[in-house]
Amino acid sequence: MKFLWTVKFMQSDSFVMAFVVYAGFNVTLVTVASLLCVYIGPSAAGSGIPEVKAYLNGVDTPNIFSIKTLFVKILGSIGSVAGGLIVGKEGPLVHVGSCIASILGQGGSVKHGLTCKWLRYLKNDRDRRDLVTCGAAAGVAAAFRAPVGGVLFAMEEVTSWWRGPLLWRAFFTTAVVAVVLRTGIAWCKQGHCGLAGEGGLIIFDVSGVQDNYGLNELVPVVVLGLLGGVLGSLFNQINAKIIMWSGGWLKKKGKFAKIAQAVIVALITSICSFGLPWLAKCRPCPDHLTIPGEKSCPSYGRAGNFKNFHCPDGYYNDLAGLFFNTNEDTVRNLFSKGTNGEFEFSSLFLYLGSAYSLALLTYGIAVPSGLFVPAILCGATYGRIVGMVMGMFYKNGPIDEGVYALLGAASFLGGSMRMTVSLCIILLELTNNLLLLPLIMLVLLISKTVGDCFNDGLYSLHVHIKGIPFLEAHPPRFMSHLTARDAITRPLIWFSKVERVGAIVEVLRSTNHHAFPIVDNDEQSGKPVLFGLVLRSHLLVLLKKKQFLEDRYSYAEKEQSSLVSSAEFAKPGSGKGLTIDDIELTAVEEEMFLDIHEVANTSPYTVVETMSLAKAYTLFRQLGLRHLCVVPRTSEVHNITIIYAYSEHCRPGVR
Amino acid sequence: MKFLWTVKFMQSDSFVMAFVVYAGFNVTLVTVASLLCVYIGPSAAGSGIPEVKAYLNGVDTPNIFSIKTLFVKILGSIGSVAGGLIVGKEGPLVHVGSCIASILGQGGSVKHGLTCKWLRYLKNDRDRRDLVTCGAAAGVAAAFRAPVGGVLFAMEEVTSWWRGPLLWRAFFTTAVVAVVLRTGIAWCKQGHCGLAGEGGLIIFDVSGVQDNYGLNELVPVVVLGLLGGVLGSLFNQINAKIIMWSGGWLKKKGKFAKIAQAVIVALITSICSFGLPWLAKCRPCPDHLTIPGEKSCPSYGRAGNFKNFHCPDGYYNDLAGLFFNTNEDTVRNLFSKGTNGEFEFSSLFLYLGSAYSLALLTYGIAVPSGLFVPAILCGATYGRIVGMVMGMFYKNGPIDEGVYALLGAASFLGGSMRMTVSLCIILLELTNNLLLLPLIMLVLLISKTVGDCFNDGLYSLHVHIKGIPFLEAHPPRFMSHLTARDAITRPLIWFSKVERVGAIVEVLRSTNHHAFPIVDNDEQSGKPVLFGLVLRSHLLVLLKKKQFLEDRYSYAEKEQSSLVSSAEFAKPGSGKGLTIDDIELTAVEEEMFLDIHEVANTSPYTVVETMSLAKAYTLFRQLGLRHLCVVPRTSEVHNITIIYAYSEHCRPGVR
Repeated sequence: MKFLWTVKFMQSDSFVMAFVVYAGFNVTLVTVASLLCVYIGPSAAGSGIPEVKAYLNGVDTPNIFSIKTLFVKILGSIGSVAGGLIVGKEGPLVHVGSCIASILGQGGSVKHGLTCKWLRYLKNDRDRRDLVTCGAAAGVAAAFRAPVGGVLFAMEEVTSWWRGPLLWRAFFTTAVVAVVLRTGIAWCKQGHCGLAGEGGLIIFDVSGVQDNYGLNELVPVVVLGLLGGVLGSLFNQINAKIIMWSGGWLKKKGKFAKIAQAVIVALITSICSFGLPWLAKCRPCPDHLTIPGEKSCPSYGRAGNFKNFHCPDGYYNDLAGLFFNTNEDTVRNLFSKGTNGEFEFSSLFLYLGSAYSLALLTYGIAVPSGLFVPAILCGATYGRIVGMVMGMFYKNGPIDEGVYALLGAASFLGGSMRMTVSLCIILLELTNNLLLLPLIMLVLLISKTVGDCFNDGLYSLHVHIKGIPFLEAHPPRFMSHLTARDAITRPLIWFSKVERVGAIVEVLRSTNHHAFPIVDNDEQSGKPVLFGLVLRSHLLVLLKKKQFLEDRYSYAEKEQSSLVSSAEFAKPGSGKGLTIDDIELTAVEEEMFLDIHEVANTSPYTVVETMSLAKAYTLFRQLGLRHLCVVPRTSEVHNITIIYAYSEHCRPGVR
Repeated sequence: MKFLWTVKFMQSDSFVMAFVVYAGFNVTLVTVASLLCVYIGPSAAGSGIPEVKAYLNGVDTPNIFSIKTLFVKILGSIGSVAGGLIVGKEGPLVHVGSCIASILGQGGSVKHGLTCKWLRYLKNDRDRRDLVTCGAAAGVAAAFRAPVGGVLFAMEEVTSWWRGPLLWRAFFTTAVVAVVLRTGIAWCKQGHCGLAGEGGLIIFDVSGVQDNYGLNELVPVVVLGLLGGVLGSLFNQINAKIIMWSGGWLKKKGKFAKIAQAVIVALITSICSFGLPWLAKCRPCPDHLTIPGEKSCPSYGRAGNFKNFHCPDGYYNDLAGLFFNTNEDTVRNLFSKGTNGEFEFSSLFLYLGSAYSLALLTYGIAVPSGLFVPAILCGATYGRIVGMVMGMFYKNGPIDEGVYALLGAASFLGGSMRMTVSLCIILLELTNNLLLLPLIMLVLLISKTVGDCFNDGLYSLHVHIKGIPFLEAHPPRFMSHLTARDAITRPLIWFSKVERVGAIVEVLRSTNHHAFPIVDNDEQSGKPVLFGLVLRSHLLVLLKKKQFLEDRYSYAEKEQSSLVSSAEFAKPGSGKGLTIDDIELTAVEEEMFLDIHEVANTSPYTVVETMSLAKAYTLFRQLGLRHLCVVPRTSEVHNITIIYAYSEHCRPGVR
């Protein structure tokens, strides 16, 4: 559409008009996207992968999975991708997948009153977390049409906690995705869905290139690996710097600045992609391809390498083939096989430079933006450059330039995102060339290793930038010199099995702990010991029910019927749920008593206060706990407590 | 070789002689294999996967990874595969990979005096376990030429404990395997290695079959899934029964019986594969394939579908193409595309029946035997049958019979081994047809689900049959009704920080615990508390060193130099290592004291005695512990203890 109009104007030589149309389209689309992001769903900006990663690590950032976010994410990413920005739809799709999953997990949206009864069994942290994992897998599977890659991506990059059954649930999810995709594509192939119907199950097919590569190919592979490692980690570093700097600046300026930023980036992108091709000189179409009688160069559909941008017939502008195209088509051009020597060095370098810097600018502005496609673009470009250089050394070198482009893409992805197995499978499923697997694996390994020397993977970096307390798999060094006792930062707040309502309310008001130990007197010794752990949310439910007791000792004869049904303890949606402010109590009720020992978790995980903190950390992380009680060696009660640093951000996990 | 001779005799119509030669070869080879297994390395029998699985779960069965086992495994599996048994080399290769890995982990074999100094850093449980995992991955990668499949197999089926870094170490291992394979194949392609040089990186290439399958294809897919689930789980059940029955019987009869069993099976196999083809009638070669002038049917190399067994020229015996062939070639024939209608129903049914029952008989006899190939054989056969049935319904049905064979294989594998992702990738890498991925995924899921209704996966069953105490991911139901205290079965045996040598020796002689708690008096309260945990092996090292003290209290001024270097605590090889009997002590030394508090693990993982046993189990399993201390709520010492059931079999794991 956009392109059709622009091209029409170009043919009638009114280039200014063409640019206006082109830039107009882009800026409008991007503006809409950023408006949505800024005013409706702020947490839909960027690729949601860091947030999902954080959630599955146990940090539930507010309304990251709300319906609003979902809505904005979908529309917004359409806008930003169609707006010609150097962004991909992959990251957003992962987020979308997780959103849908988690909304199902809540049994629909409580706030908007769309809930299904039969979904309530999923209303607990564990199932919700598993659903989100599957959702993320489904997102990747849909984005790359890579069902297995999706599962692996979820496993390797997103989750920090994995159970056997989950593996094959995720696999089932992506299998369904694959079948649906397959059917949808088959349906589209019959022309039911216009341009959207293009492309098969394999997006960039490079199968059938000659695979007679030998050991001498290892040189370029290593070179690509190193390049990828360096450029990738550099990308992470600069991008992080830009975001941190602009973040502070935007906070001062407010919402309007964010939109302005997005618009400016969109404008710059349009200028580059429309202006720079003019620098490239027109090149005659290769003879072996020109069809006699046909004036313009043969162009495989709309995704052709040959765009005669402003050139006379029979000539083409190679740079336009890269810039003046959708990102996917550009990648397809770069990967395309049997096209050696169709691109100038100058064009490729120019494109590499601008794509790299545009990607740096773009990721972080207030629109949904994925990073896979930009990474693939940069990687493929320098990959092709390396390929051409190699081509010089040994004439008709065994490997096609398109293959080098693929390896380049792999190296950049490995260098910036630091995934191995999942990327390998995703690339395999993208390109359907099994014979290149060994090369791709090597490139990934080298680039990841090089990258790891400099900094963390992109997503981990962004988790840190967002200030999310992420629990790495390994405890920080310093912890091994501390004991669990050292992590205790506050005096203990505890309840007894039957507690005065007023006291409970008082505590809930004054603290923000998520759980409180219940202390009881031991039968034999009469010494106080840890009875169990009660959750804040459960206390709130009990207070709401107002099943209070007259005095401390009357709970024994309380009849069973008054027990609270488990359904009432179901996890509320992603909203805040019950808060202490929702609960009105009369002075009389304040003086009554509440029996909390029935809802307590009577065997919480505990560590002895003298245990090394590193071990406590491992325990906490490995078991995916939310709360960890520290008990003294000797059982004076004065310092049974909950490790403060952990108990605050609510961790979905086995309790 | 075998085949060449036999065929020579057949051509000269001396069929008896041919059979003698054929059976002779087979029986001899198998006998050698079983002799090796029975007399030299008993633990090399069967596919080593259950043992590896058990080891990685924490149960270190004696000399499962010894050099002897390795040697026998390699030669034995050559024998059994070449001996025409219905076995594969995949399982054994996994075992071989793990063996090599673990031998590296021990720094060479201590017993045979081949150790490398620089490998000693790997001499600890954790690194050894990781190495074994990588080894298993490498084994699969080599067996199927499926690098990624290898990693996934190790992850999904073999290990019960997974760390992030391990993922990409395994990936690196298999990448190296892939490159080496690639180079080796390229080298063999130049004819350096005779018949072994056949086949490329993709073993059964079915790429390029038409993929225009639609929703109506789901019917056969579901059928295959169900078939696979039923037949697969039935296979597990019967096989388990046979092994348990014959196991008891063989124990009585002794070693000779085992060899006899192997020989008999080999003989039966030979009789089937030579005799049954006579039942099939000769069929004329399809006209469109016969080359004019050429008398016999065209046969793609040695792996041709057309064996004219005893038939006149121009005719072929389809059953001989299945039976009278190496297993790999049979699979290749079944998978071969564009060969619709080359097999009779009768032949396929006959082959299915005999292959199925032979596989049942074979797996469990005293030779190294893998199960992948048999499973693929059975699956592919009924897959092809289903394909032919489908072919009847809609003429020239969209999918090739070869593809049905592939799906059938997938279903049987899924139904008996219950893997999903890894099998999917392995099959993908075997057959290089990405477009069938959705179908394969569906088949796998259905067959796994159906199979799970009946019994466990094959490997888990065999782990149980071998009586290995395997810790499943989920605690058994009954545990949730017990507390940790209930798991305590013995009175506590403990040491104080400085203990009388005689007492230590006494305890080590009288018990077989692997660790002992050290109890100390608390500074303030003076009450005894748990100080730490000391390992039996470490105590033995200390006793060996004989750095004894005159009395209980002189350890304070002991100079640092007398500390034991960490290298001396390095894990011994797979052998028994130091035992209490290796230590001679004089009566004087017995009366001296040993300072053990320096080598104690001062913060062992502990649970409170009232914690539910299920939770203690989860803790133990998730963290891969070896020992778990149960401490009382109140700190009387009388029942600090180690959960007996766990502390006995030595678990590699974080301590």
